[in-house]
Amino acid sequence: MRGSASVAKSAPLPISGFIEFLPEQQLILQEFIRRIRAAYELHGFSPIETPAVERVEVLTSKGGEAAEREIYAISRLLGQQDGAEASDSNLALHFDLTVPLARYVASYASQLSFPFRRYQIQKVWRGERAQAGRFREFYQCDIDIIGREQLSLLADAEMPAVIYDVFRSLAIGEFIIRISNRKILQGFLRHYGVDRDTSAAGLRVIDKLDRHPPADWNKVLIAQTTLSPDVVERVTGFFFGAGGATAETLQWLKDHDANADKDFALGVEELGVVVKAVGELGVPETHFKIDLRLARGLDYYTGTVFETLLVGHEAIGSICSGGRYDDLTGFFADEKLPGVGISIGLTRLMAQLLDKKIVKPRASTPAKVLVTSLDKKHLPDYLKIANALRSANIATEVFTEEARLGKQLKYALRKGIPLVIIAGDQELSQGQVQLKYLTEDFAQKDVEEIPLPEIAARVTEKLRVLGLCGIAW
Amino acid sequence: MRGSASVAKSAPLPISGFIEFLPEQQLILQEFIRRIRAAYELHGFSPIETPAVERVEVLTSKGGEAAEREIYAISRLLGQQDGAEASDSNLALHFDLTVPLARYVASYASQLSFPFRRYQIQKVWRGERAQAGRFREFYQCDIDIIGREQLSLLADAEMPAVIYDVFRSLAIGEFIIRISNRKILQGFLRHYGVDRDTSAAGLRVIDKLDRHPPADWNKVLIAQTTLSPDVVERVTGFFFGAGGATAETLQWLKDHDANADKDFALGVEELGVVVKAVGELGVPETHFKIDLRLARGLDYYTGTVFETLLVGHEAIGSICSGGRYDDLTGFFADEKLPGVGISIGLTRLMAQLLDKKIVKPRASTPAKVLVTSLDKKHLPDYLKIANALRSANIATEVFTEEARLGKQLKYALRKGIPLVIIAGDQELSQGQVQLKYLTEDFAQKDVEEIPLPEIAARVTEKLRVLGLCGIAW
Repeated sequence: MRGSASVAKSAPLPISGFIEFLPEQQLILQEFIRRIRAAYELHGFSPIETPAVERVEVLTSKGGEAAEREIYAISRLLGQQDGAEASDSNLALHFDLTVPLARYVASYASQLSFPFRRYQIQKVWRGERAQAGRFREFYQCDIDIIGREQLSLLADAEMPAVIYDVFRSLAIGEFIIRISNRKILQGFLRHYGVDRDTSAAGLRVIDKLDRHPPADWNKVLIAQTTLSPDVVERVTGFFFGAGGATAETLQWLKDHDANADKDFALGVEELGVVVKAVGELGVPETHFKIDLRLARGLDYYTGTVFETLLVGHEAIGSICSGGRYDDLTGFFADEKLPGVGISIGLTRLMAQLLDKKIVKPRASTPAKVLVTSLDKKHLPDYLKIANALRSANIATEVFTEEARLGKQLKYALRKGIPLVIIAGDQELSQGQVQLKYLTEDFAQKDVEEIPLPEIAARVTEKLRVLGLCGIAW
Repeated sequence: MRGSASVAKSAPLPISGFIEFLPEQQLILQEFIRRIRAAYELHGFSPIETPAVERVEVLTSKGGEAAEREIYAISRLLGQQDGAEASDSNLALHFDLTVPLARYVASYASQLSFPFRRYQIQKVWRGERAQAGRFREFYQCDIDIIGREQLSLLADAEMPAVIYDVFRSLAIGEFIIRISNRKILQGFLRHYGVDRDTSAAGLRVIDKLDRHPPADWNKVLIAQTTLSPDVVERVTGFFFGAGGATAETLQWLKDHDANADKDFALGVEELGVVVKAVGELGVPETHFKIDLRLARGLDYYTGTVFETLLVGHEAIGSICSGGRYDDLTGFFADEKLPGVGISIGLTRLMAQLLDKKIVKPRASTPAKVLVTSLDKKHLPDYLKIANALRSANIATEVFTEEARLGKQLKYALRKGIPLVIIAGDQELSQGQVQLKYLTEDFAQKDVEEIPLPEIAARVTEKLRVLGLCGIAW
């Protein structure tokens, strides 16, 4: 089946920043999406999908020149064709799923139920500077809960519960969910006399302190912020002081002098409510912790914030982040729409997992059985066998080209199809087939003779025993 | 939970040609995609996904100004930022999944196994003139089998087998797969002396004869083609003669004078092989038929062609079409890559099914249970109940806002959540909860008292008995 590798005569170069996967990788990506979707639905989130295309004024409504610089506008390749198509102009590709969510909620508010719990798994596009690990097209998998005028803190607590279910289901190793509340650090700095701008700039550096060993934190903060040495000392002391278990950290926070600042006190109270409910929703203490360094760069977070780290692979950075915001969409709506949400950057995550071999593809096809073809005159039998297997929900391929058996077995092995059915004159005249389990070394031992009427049942059992159902990595 | 309908202050107008669905519709679309994917995988097709963006020269490589006119180019909204980003220029959105497949196969030939069986479910974009039922962004769900230099006719026969599995699984009513071979009509016309151009133009009209009653076919062909009255007579006679069951039609074709034309004879032979294998692959005669009028507009089909009609809703047109082509990608590859494929235009299909109420949304959430919240002090219990249900894989929502019970029940009813759990002081002190099946008329009868440890098991059983698992329409 494999000829020379020279099919291509002028295969175009890949476009920088646009990743695509081989089938064996794509199968895993699909399975990830399936599991993420299942976890989101288990928690009662409803799917929506918005067009890839929005009006430019919608995309730029939140401001931020940085975002604007990354927007891809669209236009007809050959220019506008006639006046009637003016509706086509001033359009661009969405660069996240939050702005489209805001527009969607504003457009259909009367037809939605609030709190509106939605998930959205779609590609977004950003004209980022091309560099390793940065993609111009990537999947985001978001959930948000949007309230009308108000939203319980329990909505915040549901986020770690969903994250816990998602990453247990993805089975990519141990993970830990970091939780904080932005009001705490903000209040802390204000309590010690730091002004608004210095504080905002300082938080951006604090958010990235993880890149340095704790012993260097003082030095880094002195070098990279305008915080006074005295305040820097207090900040690092604060972080070291808060490093205990959840209950101790909360108590320590409640006893802290900075409670004199009302934001600090409110943040501590909110964090307490959220963390308690996270436990009640079934997330064990082994999988989440309070981490006050967490600030999240995005300015629109106003309370609870989350990040998720893969234990042993912290350098990948957060694999699922989010937080609480006061108002989804001041631009589109009169009412205040507070919300809380999280996002998984799936394309980047998958690229990292493949790169670090945390995930290893095993097969390039969903097929579990290849029905080989020994003799043209038995093709009707081969097709009927395939049909019987498919009717029993076993993914099956028939080898329909002419080739020697050895070539057909190699084809199955190369694609990762674990079972092959072999049936020539002899087998079929006895009303049976050979079922062979293919192993890398082509060991001929695992072969069974199976009567035709029992094929589906026996293959089902074989797949179960060998643990070969579903997609694995 | 429902306030006034006035969330929106400046919700932007929808963009013409870009459809988006409400959650209750999106849930069904998702379930359609899941079932289509499952049927494709059952037949051993591997997923791939290509970037939405291709180089303009790739998209226009097949020629065809009509396609080119519909292409959306992309460019940075604020213009190119610097020379290093030149890789960003001359890019556009794909308008189908066939051109990207050709480019993908050329790019990765040495890493793929042939015959290459792939499926691809993605959105495509076309700057079509806006009109009812036409979309500028829509899902295509394609499968193709690509051979190297050659490909068995059995690959053609697999297409109806997949179509049969897909549409049985979608459960949208009876359907029939029409099968023909382009060589037959082409050979027929040549046999009766029709030249190439007249024949090509004639085939385009023949392909749309269905729009007229059979009694008018002569008249239509005379008016809309340059075929002579004599040939028109023969063509309609040919169609009426071939109207029998599959075996009779094949025999009738084999006996026909036009077999003197070698294309006609080859087409009849190919059709015979394909139709026989379609039956052996398990598609019953009730679900497919030879229909020689089938010509398919697209010029690249060279043999077998398919269409699928929804019985009783033929006006929708074909819901799944495709065919055999000689060469996927002469432009990119030295080798000849013959293939066969089909495509489902899912967005248009879904819009039609909703419009004609063939599909009726029942719920706007995947949640099957709402845990209501009667008393703030019992919130830990409510969260634990939700966790127990989710651990048993039952999609569950907790009502976390403060509201009277009546309001919470209305919320569940409006979203289509069938079961609610009610637990106040009295129930919880006795270690139990109320499980209520919500019906439109709020009949209070279907209420059970359930001990706390049995909730998950009892709810699972209740959903099974009521037939409420999964998504229905």
